[in-house]
Amino acid sequence: MITEDFVTTSVTPSESLATLSPVEVARLQDASQGGLYRLFRQCCLAVLNCGSELDSTKMVLERYKKFDIKISQKHRGLQLDLINAPASAFVDGEIIQGIREHLFSVLRDLLYIGDELDDYCHGLDEGGTITHTVFQILRHADVFRPHVKPNLVVCWGGHSIGHDEYEYTKKVGYELGLRRLNICTGCGPGAMKGPMKGAAIAHAKQRIRDARYVGISEPGIIAAESPNPIVNELLIMPDIEKRLEAFVRLGHGIVVFPGGAGTAEEILYILGVLLHEKNNELPFPLIFTGPEGSEAYFETIDRFLRKTLGDAAAKRYEIIVGDPVKVALRMEAGLRDVTAYRKATSESFHFNWQISIPLTFQQPFEPTHDNMATLNLFQDQSPCDLASNLRRALSGIVAGNVKEPGVQAIEEFGPFELCGEPDLMDPLDQLLNSFVQQRRMKLNYQEYTPCYRLTGVAGAIA
Amino acid sequence: MITEDFVTTSVTPSESLATLSPVEVARLQDASQGGLYRLFRQCCLAVLNCGSELDSTKMVLERYKKFDIKISQKHRGLQLDLINAPASAFVDGEIIQGIREHLFSVLRDLLYIGDELDDYCHGLDEGGTITHTVFQILRHADVFRPHVKPNLVVCWGGHSIGHDEYEYTKKVGYELGLRRLNICTGCGPGAMKGPMKGAAIAHAKQRIRDARYVGISEPGIIAAESPNPIVNELLIMPDIEKRLEAFVRLGHGIVVFPGGAGTAEEILYILGVLLHEKNNELPFPLIFTGPEGSEAYFETIDRFLRKTLGDAAAKRYEIIVGDPVKVALRMEAGLRDVTAYRKATSESFHFNWQISIPLTFQQPFEPTHDNMATLNLFQDQSPCDLASNLRRALSGIVAGNVKEPGVQAIEEFGPFELCGEPDLMDPLDQLLNSFVQQRRMKLNYQEYTPCYRLTGVAGAIA
Amino acid sequence: MITEDFVTTSVTPSESLATLSPVEVARLQDASQGGLYRLFRQCCLAVLNCGSELDSTKMVLERYKKFDIKISQKHRGLQLDLINAPASAFVDGEIIQGIREHLFSVLRDLLYIGDELDDYCHGLDEGGTITHTVFQILRHADVFRPHVKPNLVVCWGGHSIGHDEYEYTKKVGYELGLRRLNICTGCGPGAMKGPMKGAAIAHAKQRIRDARYVGISEPGIIAAESPNPIVNELLIMPDIEKRLEAFVRLGHGIVVFPGGAGTAEEILYILGVLLHEKNNELPFPLIFTGPEGSEAYFETIDRFLRKTLGDAAAKRYEIIVGDPVKVALRMEAGLRDVTAYRKATSESFHFNWQISIPLTFQQPFEPTHDNMATLNLFQDQSPCDLASNLRRALSGIVAGNVKEPGVQAIEEFGPFELCGEPDLMDPLDQLLNSFVQQRRMKLNYQEYTPCYRLTGVAGAIA
Amino acid sequence: MITEDFVTTSVTPSESLATLSPVEVARLQDASQGGLYRLFRQCCLAVLNCGSELDSTKMVLERYKKFDIKISQKHRGLQLDLINAPASAFVDGEIIQGIREHLFSVLRDLLYIGDELDDYCHGLDEGGTITHTVFQILRHADVFRPHVKPNLVVCWGGHSIGHDEYEYTKKVGYELGLRRLNICTGCGPGAMKGPMKGAAIAHAKQRIRDARYVGISEPGIIAAESPNPIVNELLIMPDIEKRLEAFVRLGHGIVVFPGGAGTAEEILYILGVLLHEKNNELPFPLIFTGPEGSEAYFETIDRFLRKTLGDAAAKRYEIIVGDPVKVALRMEAGLRDVTAYRKATSESFHFNWQISIPLTFQQPFEPTHDNMATLNLFQDQSPCDLASNLRRALSGIVAGNVKEPGVQAIEEFGPFELCGEPDLMDPLDQLLNSFVQQRRMKLNYQEYTPCYRLTGVAGAIA
Repeated sequence: MITEDFVTTSVTPSESLATLSPVEVARLQDASQGGLYRLFRQCCLAVLNCGSELDSTKMVLERYKKFDIKISQKHRGLQLDLINAPASAFVDGEIIQGIREHLFSVLRDLLYIGDELDDYCHGLDEGGTITHTVFQILRHADVFRPHVKPNLVVCWGGHSIGHDEYEYTKKVGYELGLRRLNICTGCGPGAMKGPMKGAAIAHAKQRIRDARYVGISEPGIIAAESPNPIVNELLIMPDIEKRLEAFVRLGHGIVVFPGGAGTAEEILYILGVLLHEKNNELPFPLIFTGPEGSEAYFETIDRFLRKTLGDAAAKRYEIIVGDPVKVALRMEAGLRDVTAYRKATSESFHFNWQISIPLTFQQPFEPTHDNMATLNLFQDQSPCDLASNLRRALSGIVAGNVKEPGVQAIEEFGPFELCGEPDLMDPLDQLLNSFVQQRRMKLNYQEYTPCYRLTGVAGAIA
Repeated sequence: MITEDFVTTSVTPSESLATLSPVEVARLQDASQGGLYRLFRQCCLAVLNCGSELDSTKMVLERYKKFDIKISQKHRGLQLDLINAPASAFVDGEIIQGIREHLFSVLRDLLYIGDELDDYCHGLDEGGTITHTVFQILRHADVFRPHVKPNLVVCWGGHSIGHDEYEYTKKVGYELGLRRLNICTGCGPGAMKGPMKGAAIAHAKQRIRDARYVGISEPGIIAAESPNPIVNELLIMPDIEKRLEAFVRLGHGIVVFPGGAGTAEEILYILGVLLHEKNNELPFPLIFTGPEGSEAYFETIDRFLRKTLGDAAAKRYEIIVGDPVKVALRMEAGLRDVTAYRKATSESFHFNWQISIPLTFQQPFEPTHDNMATLNLFQDQSPCDLASNLRRALSGIVAGNVKEPGVQAIEEFGPFELCGEPDLMDPLDQLLNSFVQQRRMKLNYQEYTPCYRLTGVAGAIA
Repeated sequence: MITEDFVTTSVTPSESLATLSPVEVARLQDASQGGLYRLFRQCCLAVLNCGSELDSTKMVLERYKKFDIKISQKHRGLQLDLINAPASAFVDGEIIQGIREHLFSVLRDLLYIGDELDDYCHGLDEGGTITHTVFQILRHADVFRPHVKPNLVVCWGGHSIGHDEYEYTKKVGYELGLRRLNICTGCGPGAMKGPMKGAAIAHAKQRIRDARYVGISEPGIIAAESPNPIVNELLIMPDIEKRLEAFVRLGHGIVVFPGGAGTAEEILYILGVLLHEKNNELPFPLIFTGPEGSEAYFETIDRFLRKTLGDAAAKRYEIIVGDPVKVALRMEAGLRDVTAYRKATSESFHFNWQISIPLTFQQPFEPTHDNMATLNLFQDQSPCDLASNLRRALSGIVAGNVKEPGVQAIEEFGPFELCGEPDLMDPLDQLLNSFVQQRRMKLNYQEYTPCYRLTGVAGAIA
Repeated sequence: MITEDFVTTSVTPSESLATLSPVEVARLQDASQGGLYRLFRQCCLAVLNCGSELDSTKMVLERYKKFDIKISQKHRGLQLDLINAPASAFVDGEIIQGIREHLFSVLRDLLYIGDELDDYCHGLDEGGTITHTVFQILRHADVFRPHVKPNLVVCWGGHSIGHDEYEYTKKVGYELGLRRLNICTGCGPGAMKGPMKGAAIAHAKQRIRDARYVGISEPGIIAAESPNPIVNELLIMPDIEKRLEAFVRLGHGIVVFPGGAGTAEEILYILGVLLHEKNNELPFPLIFTGPEGSEAYFETIDRFLRKTLGDAAAKRYEIIVGDPVKVALRMEAGLRDVTAYRKATSESFHFNWQISIPLTFQQPFEPTHDNMATLNLFQDQSPCDLASNLRRALSGIVAGNVKEPGVQAIEEFGPFELCGEPDLMDPLDQLLNSFVQQRRMKLNYQEYTPCYRLTGVAGAIA
């Protein structure tokens, strides 16, 4: 049944994805505190809402408040009943196959995550346990290709970018695809979609039928960054920190396109990790790139990174402007180094156990006003630790911009207060201002009001 | 070895395509009069030259005059040695897989065509024999899908079109692809490429891994309209008339985008055939469409057709402007009619034996100055016959624009002379003028000089 | 390296089966009390020892005491190093592919079982938890085919049977295979192998490339009943009771061939379950069959069952002698009933949640001398409970015959003492005697000494 | 509809095998002199009659004289209507899939053969043209695997063999299959079926899903040697000589089991060819083998060959008795030589162009009484020519035993007269006598009356 913008219909999985037990079905339907229903409904709505112009979780939930989802078991397997679902997910009343698969990926991951893996499994410490959890979720989702040489390129960048930047991400994706490389992104619009689109055309020309378009999301962000249906392997990680760890351990190299606060968070994450001394020898191709005209943008980024993390950080990335072929060739060269290193060290191709991620990057950070206000944004710490704190600051700003609890907290208590050394706060302020002016903070830029306030303070926090 | 714009390398088929006998290898290498070498070299060059901005066969041949191709048999099968091939066919020195397949499709079809099928086989008349030849070439190329419901949409339109028109062909292709329809075109750039590109993205979203992008070419046109590598089933028919017959018997419906002389030739072909009384009952979806702003273009076309072929012809097509979803829905409805009709009449899904194509549309027309000058362009004939003669006139103009012998003849003898009744010649003149002004005749429009001269004559040819 | 009967070599998985974490590799290598090494080595040895004439776990372990297995992680995935493995698993030094897959099935299941699933998960009671565990192991092993109509026929019967009986099991398998049915057995020799062999030929004639030969084993029995390499889906359940539950919930019908104590145990299991009142309406095809000449055997079985469980039990099975086509046709009819019932009740095709298995059939029974001696073998109980106790008695006898701890216990303490009502003990005695005389107890029948002693006692146990 | 032994039903091809034109359908239905109907009906009947105990074409045709076959074109493709077909081809009224495929293989080959390929194509001589025809038929049937290393083992031997011999052929097939080799035979019962059956089990254990069981037949013999349904690539060659050439050019090595006149014909063919001086260097593994007890049989063969063709012939084969593993290992070694030779000489893996087959082995021999009587069976010729004439003599005897026109000729004119030098006729007589006594001439041996009479004549034919 189609009524204007809403569709009510039933959906079954195309493959053997979903053989659930009655207990599992009950948990997905359980709307009580411990139950999964609320999370499941929200993620499914995000998946169905792809192609929407909304990046505010709150507005999405408001618009589709009548949306409901029910699960039932039939003799041939599982069935999902969708009530008042966004019409954009359907063609002539039939759900788009890619979106159908996403629904069942959500179901698969939420059930698995929900099984509350033990905190300290098999004698591992806290960090080891988190990594093991990331590994288990990825394996359960069947994303490992043990026999395949490193070829998965993570593309980071803004969901809200200009037309030229978007076309450029397609061209880079095209050149990567021509070289038989696969794409992994955060699975939303903008720089998360363009490289997949470009690669899809290149893969068609190269007759690659098993090309991979991996999208990694998490429940807090998925509604703001609906997976585009080209994504053919969708993963829902439990939180932003495990999502970032998944990018870094599953991907073999990273391309960063222009973006806003989220992209800056990602840059700080990977650089902070690579600055850890245990990772000194580890090859990890990292390229910042944008179309002609983006020189200024990357200068701002570069300056900010050098000022905060030091010049050593700058040795870990390469900036290439307006040259998609060069990006692809440099990435290919980097992947050859990765391959050689893994062979030499008997590291698996499919999961980067070797990269050492400090616990501070792994532990979930809850961006409350208190937690934000007490972040250590002073120079009296290692670049790695500073990167971690700056990462958290930016993570909080993303939450304040588009995540549901973040937006609510801002509405209630006003902007987050961040205070730190002027030498840090000034470049940060410049960076954030440039994002605002370049309309990178939100799709709906006209209404943007900063969710943060920066204060320079002499000396360190007592 | 890569030297600037040329690549010299060896290529082997990826599948069992090419198990040739020594005799067959010798024929492909035979540069004498009866041998296939010249044709083979020329078609391979066209395939390798995809993405080029040249649509002049002569200029292509001139530019790559040092190109050569050799065949040898190895213990694991066939090998092609390419010497001084266009670099655009390669990525980092390795041939693009889609182009590799095209080379072997050329080889397959040329050898098969070259076997000189008997003129009157198995007691068939001339027309029946031509149709049987078309059937045999298609079957030999393995393009039939007997169990699949009609879903192959032929897209016709210009190779030289504007940016808005090109984007529109992508959108129509996308909407067709979302509805799981496959695309068949003349396999060059412009309106022949856009629908495939759009459909490829839609097919990715629908997870259709065996999507079809059929390209039908012929040796005379292939150099001017290099197959784009998205084409995953390339067919080389012996001449333009068999190419048109292949479109009509293999495809299940036709969408026509704006174009120039070639597109007009195609429109006259299909309408002439459908106007034949034996085809009165036959369902055949035929949609003319373009982006907003193309209203005037289609009015010109519509007016020309009504004036020359009569209003009955106009009942066979539908004009839709600026509405890709409507195009897709109307095509879907038309295909349902086709399916129902074939079931009711036990006609196969994969080859339209039923459509009656008069011999005058089947016989190869050689556009010499003499043949052009003596075309009957008067009203004293059935609409079907008139369509046939107009089709030939336009076919000659295409040859004079971009085909090698045609361009040479024009250089030597000046423009073709076409004369006929003023009531026909005037609308034809207007139509051709509009193509010239809209830059549809050639990619390289600045230099365009008409290769024809129209003369109105009172009364019919004696 | 091959030295006579032993082979030392390395093996990698052919697919992405084995992406283990370092923690998991460590557990498989852990030879301490809680570690998996001992079990893993023993099961792998059993898998490698297929085709052997030994059905004594102890003798197998003794013969291959120098066998060792090591695991290491390489950049392309897991590697198993086999030291002094049975040569029969190899052809010219290369492991048989089917056996290679079995090794990795063992690894997969042992690791999963070893994760100590919670006793009372998600609020389920003890029985529910056991069933959920069975479900999870099967799902983890990817044996569900949710969209496929019921077609999995369990074949039970002796591992030690005569030549005519063996040929007959092949013929029945052939007729089942011709009707596109799949086979599931306990995966050892004799009646567990014959039906698969027959079905394999029939499946080849029917061009069924995804035919299923499911073998379900458990660590205690696997060494005595090495999986034959035709088995293409090997499952290791944690204990005999879960193995039996897996047969009953995964399979859609059962054929029972002649056999010994183990087969009698299986018959008592399925009849005991089916006699439970909750299963009264449940269709479950159950056919006892053997070649011409096996009439007497089945009369003995039938008499025993009627005397102990009553005539109601006999309504649940059909005896067919010497007619493979009839067996196949009756099974087909039964499966049609199963299909209809599951559709009518929205029960899944792939797992029989509906069949009610009383807890007494689910709880692991440890056949110590004490437990055997105190079994209630009197009539003062429901047929269902009596079946359960008789099942346990026979399970103990199987252990005493071929399982490692059972044989040791017998060597140490003498035969098990079973006592009960004469009306029960007499038929049981006759049944067991007939097995001994027909050489069904062990492959190596000459040396067979009964591991049990039956005593008739008037009145019930106090 | 099933009536006792006959089934009337409709069959459609499972794949896109059969997209025929109306003209082709008409030819298959054409019962006139030049039409294909008679041949098509006879071959289809043979295919449907598999598993029968009849090896007399005449009796088969008599028994199923009411059998008829009709072809019609439906919207989804071709349909065959079978009237009064042998019931053994069906399971519960549904045709066995392998037999269904055979029907469409017959159709494919008869239509292709029927196209009357030119006698002297492309400037080839008579022998070259015949070889080219063989190549074209094989390629059209899609049997080439250009990228696969030589692994196709031809197994020759009697259709009428004892139980021990049959079991032995299964064991040899099993050992070949374990080594991943494929099987090619004449596709009837006995030694043509056993190796496929054994290999099928081994291939299942090795998880080889694309194993090949190639059967090569011809219209004259197919009714006497119905293809067994394990054959998954059935080829119908135009005559016995092209069938033999197909074995030799497609297969990579040959195993010969005990057999009768047909097997002797095959041995004389391959040895005659290999004795040709142009083939001196060519590696071609050729193994004669049988179970323990077959020593005497092979001594007779060996003696006959040495006496007639000389000791040089004996260097081309190896006799192995009662050792299937050795047969497989020797064949593997031989195939390695073949592989090395083809690589060294750039010969294709899939078709042996290099082996030189003298015209006398290629030209069809019609075994009339006249032609038989005038065979040159004297020593005044090269071993190669003598082998050719002896081959023809035995070919005639096979025809007189089981082929339709041969049996009729014998009934009408009495036995064939063969005369030649006593030194040749005596060993031939002994050989044939041994076949008769060992019941190898016909399945129905009790009634066997020799269809030949041998006469020793001093001196050569004038």
